[in-house]
Amino acid sequence: MKIVEVRERTFPIASQIRNAVIDFSKMTLSAVAVVTDVVRDGAPVVGYGFNSNGRYGQGPLLRDRFIPRLMSADSRSLLDESGENLDPGRIWAALMTNEKPGGHGERSVAVGTVDMAVWDAVAKIARKPLFRLLADRYGAAATPRVFVYAAGGYYYPGKGPSALQDEMRRYVERGYTVVKMKIGGAPLEEDLRRIESVLQVVGDGSRLAVDANGKFDLETALAYGRALAPYGLRWYEEAGDPLDYALQAELGHRYEGPVATGENLFSHQDARNLLRYGGMRKDRDILQFDCALSYGLVEYLRTLDVVRSEGWSPRRCIPHGGHQLSLHIAAGLGLGGNESYPDLFQPFGGFPDPVRRPASAPASGDGRARCRRERDRRCVACPIPSWPWSRPPRSISLLPVTASAAGGPRRTRTCRAEPSPRRARYRAACR
Amino acid sequence: MKIVEVRERTFPIASQIRNAVIDFSKMTLSAVAVVTDVVRDGAPVVGYGFNSNGRYGQGPLLRDRFIPRLMSADSRSLLDESGENLDPGRIWAALMTNEKPGGHGERSVAVGTVDMAVWDAVAKIARKPLFRLLADRYGAAATPRVFVYAAGGYYYPGKGPSALQDEMRRYVERGYTVVKMKIGGAPLEEDLRRIESVLQVVGDGSRLAVDANGKFDLETALAYGRALAPYGLRWYEEAGDPLDYALQAELGHRYEGPVATGENLFSHQDARNLLRYGGMRKDRDILQFDCALSYGLVEYLRTLDVVRSEGWSPRRCIPHGGHQLSLHIAAGLGLGGNESYPDLFQPFGGFPDPVRRPASAPASGDGRARCRRERDRRCVACPIPSWPWSRPPRSISLLPVTASAAGGPRRTRTCRAEPSPRRARYRAACR
Repeated sequence: MKIVEVRERTFPIASQIRNAVIDFSKMTLSAVAVVTDVVRDGAPVVGYGFNSNGRYGQGPLLRDRFIPRLMSADSRSLLDESGENLDPGRIWAALMTNEKPGGHGERSVAVGTVDMAVWDAVAKIARKPLFRLLADRYGAAATPRVFVYAAGGYYYPGKGPSALQDEMRRYVERGYTVVKMKIGGAPLEEDLRRIESVLQVVGDGSRLAVDANGKFDLETALAYGRALAPYGLRWYEEAGDPLDYALQAELGHRYEGPVATGENLFSHQDARNLLRYGGMRKDRDILQFDCALSYGLVEYLRTLDVVRSEGWSPRRCIPHGGHQLSLHIAAGLGLGGNESYPDLFQPFGGFPDPVRRPASAPASGDGRARCRRERDRRCVACPIPSWPWSRPPRSISLLPVTASAAGGPRRTRTCRAEPSPRRARYRAACR
Repeated sequence: MKIVEVRERTFPIASQIRNAVIDFSKMTLSAVAVVTDVVRDGAPVVGYGFNSNGRYGQGPLLRDRFIPRLMSADSRSLLDESGENLDPGRIWAALMTNEKPGGHGERSVAVGTVDMAVWDAVAKIARKPLFRLLADRYGAAATPRVFVYAAGGYYYPGKGPSALQDEMRRYVERGYTVVKMKIGGAPLEEDLRRIESVLQVVGDGSRLAVDANGKFDLETALAYGRALAPYGLRWYEEAGDPLDYALQAELGHRYEGPVATGENLFSHQDARNLLRYGGMRKDRDILQFDCALSYGLVEYLRTLDVVRSEGWSPRRCIPHGGHQLSLHIAAGLGLGGNESYPDLFQPFGGFPDPVRRPASAPASGDGRARCRRERDRRCVACPIPSWPWSRPPRSISLLPVTASAAGGPRRTRTCRAEPSPRRARYRAACR
């Protein structure tokens, strides 16, 4: 078996939203398809990956450096011991050949996107949902129910407290118990009014997290901390520059509530520095390293080793990015949850629409999400525009029809009470 | 005035050499030309920049993200208060619009390369050598004599101790008083034999630095440290991963001689972390941050602020990269020296051939290096394939002839005892 081809395409996920530091007017991401010659259910297995929002698509690096390097490797050197599946670790080593240490940005996104597609292919070839494969491989107990929260609350032209409340109400109505909003893009007083308007919707500070996206200097971070303390928020996220561990430590010293950070640290070395020097507290704080931006799951496994060796529980990890790779990792390796962007960054954001109670949505594995409607509890298979796709929706065309699954790209929303034999196998594997 | 165009091109600097971590078989770099509508000496001013070796060329990021972003900015917003020259800080801010914090790699190289070209243009428009402009602007005392050392000693197929000695002998014969060689790409015993063979040529450990390129874990770093200690080497460079500050601190605790690191830290935040957590010793250790790989001189000025605020002298900075931007910074802002690659990474590496005594080579400013031959002490102007070029050599064609300096690209090696009026002005400015 071998990788026949790796395709990539850059997609716009442009939007008028902004956080405290950037706007998303020209935001892009990369989607990657790893095409194998392994046939499952009558079609070649194709693994798909995409990078999370906020760091730009890496088409150029993929085309110029990483895909040619991967395709020039001896295909046998990329297989596992059985020779019957890909070995993500060996593929990772091939991708990172002749790359110097340090400088973990951009290339970490390119490699992470390929790695996501590789793991998708590996799970499909193994005929297992990825979370189950991970639990089996690494000796963890699979926990198909994963806490997810709704990230939103961006600044938007003309968006007042009422529109912000409407947005949060939609999340709550969909079943989310925790929501997140941006701060730091307005003066403190205005941000406090925004926070209070959201608290009117969600009811309690423990159901609201706030995110400053690394904007604040120490003085501002502490001023916000003093103002936020009375609300008893779920967490206070990325107050200062992600690499300013001294600021983070001082904030943790002064702000009693949980803090969160890590989405802009893109290697296990950077993650280790946060744990060594950032004053993070093992009993309450949240680690948000995002594998799609950080060289993928192969590197995230090293990060989890660091997390454990520094005395932390993986339960304190709730990754950034709102993609299903992290959902699978959470379900398969015992993380504390995952981010979700219910209405943003489409068609790449969010989890399946039919998920009425996201906290009970099991991770998917063969390109479909098995999930339950809150009302009728029917099992439904949801071909949705989230990774992993058995085939991506028509708007995300990466492959000629012949190389894709039989029938080519399509998007359906049908829900069937009676699953196909394939779905039945999948349901069995999910249990 | 305005920037008319920014051109970039990727060049191979491929070679069979290798260090402990990578080989250079597919190494590239980016060269950038910033074309202005300002006329000096009858031709439009063009600033040139290129990125140092070891991190790949960034043509794709430049083309897709940074050059379009810069060219879409209001050209008046990129000028200084006088409106008669470019403002590198404002250009930097335009380049970094909508870039999230953290993730300092790849884009840091793209931005650094543009920034180098911008400063070249600024100096040419101001009719000053850059080092003089920097000294004037930042209140430093210009020191046109800069310590440089010869970096080489790479592993190379079939290269034994005798070839290594020949290489080092060539550097010594050219006047270099300090040379550097690679370690960590062979077993310790073999590296020690290589080191001893070089010491036979250079005579004394204080004239030899060694560089492990971040290869070692702590145990290996300390084992090498114990073996190296008796030689009294100039410095022991990048023993471990550039982000493993704890390893660096432990090494500094156990190895008494000078250590050096920093070339793979690409932001002032990363530099600050090294100084905060890396146990570096202000009385002996060397900081090698390379502005061309690290968002350019605008960011390097922040790094120098960090260096000073952490209680260090800029004299402890000897940048990586062997380019003339760092040579100018060293001469204009009082660094301790600069790296040089006399025979490597051509046509981008090295300083002027006629420099027989590199320690006395003044930095250049208008595309020519004013320097002295050791024997005849004649002033010579050397149009050489190093930045800043008044025009790049023919092999590095970035511009159509019409947009370049009058006469188009050419390469000459003539040395004139009697300088032209322009050279005379330049000599006067260098004094």
